Amino acid sequence: MLEELKKQVLEANLLLPKYNLVKFTWGNVSGIDREKNLVVIKPSGVPYEELTIEKLVVVDFDGNIVEGDYRPSSDTATHIELYKKYKDMGGIVHTHSTWATIWAQACMEMPALGTTHADHFYGNIPCTRKLTQEEIEGDYEKNTGKVIIETLGDGEVMAVPGILVSCHAPFTWGKNPRDAVVNSVVLEETCNMAYHTVTLNKGIESLDQYLLDKHYYRKHGKNAYYGQK
Amino acid sequence: MLEELKKQVLEANLLLPKYNLVKFTWGNVSGIDREKNLVVIKPSGVPYEELTIEKLVVVDFDGNIVEGDYRPSSDTATHIELYKKYKDMGGIVHTHSTWATIWAQACMEMPALGTTHADHFYGNIPCTRKLTQEEIEGDYEKNTGKVIIETLGDGEVMAVPGILVSCHAPFTWGKNPRDAVVNSVVLEETCNMAYHTVTLNKGIESLDQYLLDKHYYRKHGKNAYYGQK
Amino acid sequence: MLEELKKQVLEANLLLPKYNLVKFTWGNVSGIDREKNLVVIKPSGVPYEELTIEKLVVVDFDGNIVEGDYRPSSDTATHIELYKKYKDMGGIVHTHSTWATIWAQACMEMPALGTTHADHFYGNIPCTRKLTQEEIEGDYEKNTGKVIIETLGDGEVMAVPGILVSCHAPFTWGKNPRDAVVNSVVLEETCNMAYHTVTLNKGIESLDQYLLDKHYYRKHGKNAYYGQK
Amino acid sequence: MLEELKKQVLEANLLLPKYNLVKFTWGNVSGIDREKNLVVIKPSGVPYEELTIEKLVVVDFDGNIVEGDYRPSSDTATHIELYKKYKDMGGIVHTHSTWATIWAQACMEMPALGTTHADHFYGNIPCTRKLTQEEIEGDYEKNTGKVIIETLGDGEVMAVPGILVSCHAPFTWGKNPRDAVVNSVVLEETCNMAYHTVTLNKGIESLDQYLLDKHYYRKHGKNAYYGQK
Repeated sequence: MLEELKKQVLEANLLLPKYNLVKFTWGNVSGIDREKNLVVIKPSGVPYEELTIEKLVVVDFDGNIVEGDYRPSSDTATHIELYKKYKDMGGIVHTHSTWATIWAQACMEMPALGTTHADHFYGNIPCTRKLTQEEIEGDYEKNTGKVIIETLGDGEVMAVPGILVSCHAPFTWGKNPRDAVVNSVVLEETCNMAYHTVTLNKGIESLDQYLLDKHYYRKHGKNAYYGQK
Repeated sequence: MLEELKKQVLEANLLLPKYNLVKFTWGNVSGIDREKNLVVIKPSGVPYEELTIEKLVVVDFDGNIVEGDYRPSSDTATHIELYKKYKDMGGIVHTHSTWATIWAQACMEMPALGTTHADHFYGNIPCTRKLTQEEIEGDYEKNTGKVIIETLGDGEVMAVPGILVSCHAPFTWGKNPRDAVVNSVVLEETCNMAYHTVTLNKGIESLDQYLLDKHYYRKHGKNAYYGQK
Repeated sequence: MLEELKKQVLEANLLLPKYNLVKFTWGNVSGIDREKNLVVIKPSGVPYEELTIEKLVVVDFDGNIVEGDYRPSSDTATHIELYKKYKDMGGIVHTHSTWATIWAQACMEMPALGTTHADHFYGNIPCTRKLTQEEIEGDYEKNTGKVIIETLGDGEVMAVPGILVSCHAPFTWGKNPRDAVVNSVVLEETCNMAYHTVTLNKGIESLDQYLLDKHYYRKHGKNAYYGQK
Repeated sequence: MLEELKKQVLEANLLLPKYNLVKFTWGNVSGIDREKNLVVIKPSGVPYEELTIEKLVVVDFDGNIVEGDYRPSSDTATHIELYKKYKDMGGIVHTHSTWATIWAQACMEMPALGTTHADHFYGNIPCTRKLTQEEIEGDYEKNTGKVIIETLGDGEVMAVPGILVSCHAPFTWGKNPRDAVVNSVVLEETCNMAYHTVTLNKGIESLDQYLLDKHYYRKHGKNAYYGQK
């Protein structure tokens, strides 16, 4: 079942080591079938070089394993919370990539400081509040999803397709698993640039709205003119 | 048409990933035929691994496509402005290379702090002013060229063959496309060194003029004595 | 003798260059046979590309060579001190890996700032006091072990399986040689992240105990639920 | 003539790109035949991938080309000054390697902050004063050698086999060309570590003399006990 989606999820997971976003097994990608409300996700703790289609796990919205011999990623409940809330998400990525994790550990929103950022993300990358002791000791992964949702709110979430979880690491998403990984690569590079920009010029501020608009809409939406038709 | 120039432009574009100056499609190289006033440039949004001679685009000074089935780089109008103004430019490169973009995002001129810089660039690398809202919402890419020209002025521009566009990223140029890419590599490395030099020694200042002269003219002009005859 | 252990020690040593933890011969891994109280360790100053099973050295708890034609690592006495004191250590690694060495040279404890850290290390990575002149001019490598023990104390040492020796570099350990190398990789990456986190946000503090607990015990102990059963 | 020395000089030059010490042609290695007082050096501006034994240049102590069809490195006069003054030097390297150049551009001595440094260099790496306008406009490369000598003085120079030339870049040396390159690699890594150590802990000071002694003499001199006999 879900053969095409599994193939996409496998390929997207294998992009994580290719783009140097993970060490060991520090990351996972999932994808969703919106008709069946089933999520395909990486098995927990399996090295990327040993990952195959057969080892992927299919879970439903209650986290039950529908198919697969392996335990799903320990972060599965976070993915499910996000998929349930935001219908446009087709793929989700969680990594501990170096630069994005640095901003998450610093518990700081990552500002939009240049057009590299604006080409891909329509505004600052938010950072969640810290989870409370109760949230951590309770249903932790589910509560991580809830705190992300609390931060993102009810609106559109595909224009800023990433978030930093305080003291933890980033999540990104996209219309499909591959797109979500691309957003992880861009987040990592923009976090790298932003670290060095703010340490070079301490007074720097986020982009003016009109420059953010210009670059974002050059690449997105009906008036986009970047790339081929 | 322009087969030799197209070959040069293709090869120069392929140097961008080779020298780690780009992620995805974040960069473009063009070259010009000065007799015909035709510019050969990378197509917009095409991955480097898929780039071929046939996909390059030929445009005239009004931005009209003279040959090619693809849309040219979205930055084409900036390239054209520069070629029209500065007759010595034979190739132009735009990237979002990490260290040069950091200085551009910091909206800071990159100072000439050592002989590595002086060997290649005869002075600080300027940073443009920010474009106004009107310039951004108007003919943006053309106005980017105009603001670069405003910064560079009417004089000779081949001795400092690069510029940082505020909140954006660098442009470099050279006597041909390959030479322009070499200048991008040097700009990236000197921006890396300069970031760390100014954060290590906050009081450091630009090179003395006579050391700048010495190193620049060791490699450039009629009295150069670096390299083979 | 000890063929299986030697194989493990060889393979673990070869992981050091693979994971970019060493330049030249700047590192060594050992393993111990707890029944015989014999330690297998890398020979001193032998390049990794020339390392073979036959070149490994077997020493007893007094540092006597029991087998092998080579001189053991100059740090052997430090390894022996630690093995004698802490019965759970099955493998020990010493490197001068870049980021961990930076924290050691700064003579600073490396704080637990995120879940990447908490997933592997149950608390801050301590930094020893400086050795005294007498300790350095005396039995230096043995005294290095003693000062590490003074810092770690009498308790359990496998939950925080690494230490920074002031002005020097890190040691890590594990239940076997490979596990000790994995801890070196994690220490290097968390030291990298921690450097940039504390320079980005100077007021940042170590993780709350409950988040440290949550992530550490997700992966360790009888209630762990990360990975496959 | 000098076939063995030429082979050593070629191999040492090829180590520069291998160890990521150079971009393009930004570096050169020489070796000396002390019986004939002849220096073999890289030709100026020749890419490493095109370098062959036949392209190396042999010069005498007056800088005259004794053999070779190419112009020698533009830095040849600096090498000759050092060889004439210091009889123990068998090979000299000049690069613009990133981290060492950062310290040189900052015009700062690089402090001995850890045992990685002490294992190889017996004390801080000095930084020359700036050359005067007269020295730069006169016989520049020769004067660079003179200012290095002014800094190093008349004593032994093999224990601290490197120097930073203010606003410029490092020189290192060794008993032969290969050894000089190894010192460049170590200088690059210790400069990297030192930059981050002093930015992490601003109050940090150079190693205590007894720790410097211990580590340096573990590896050097008649009582050394590192490595194989």
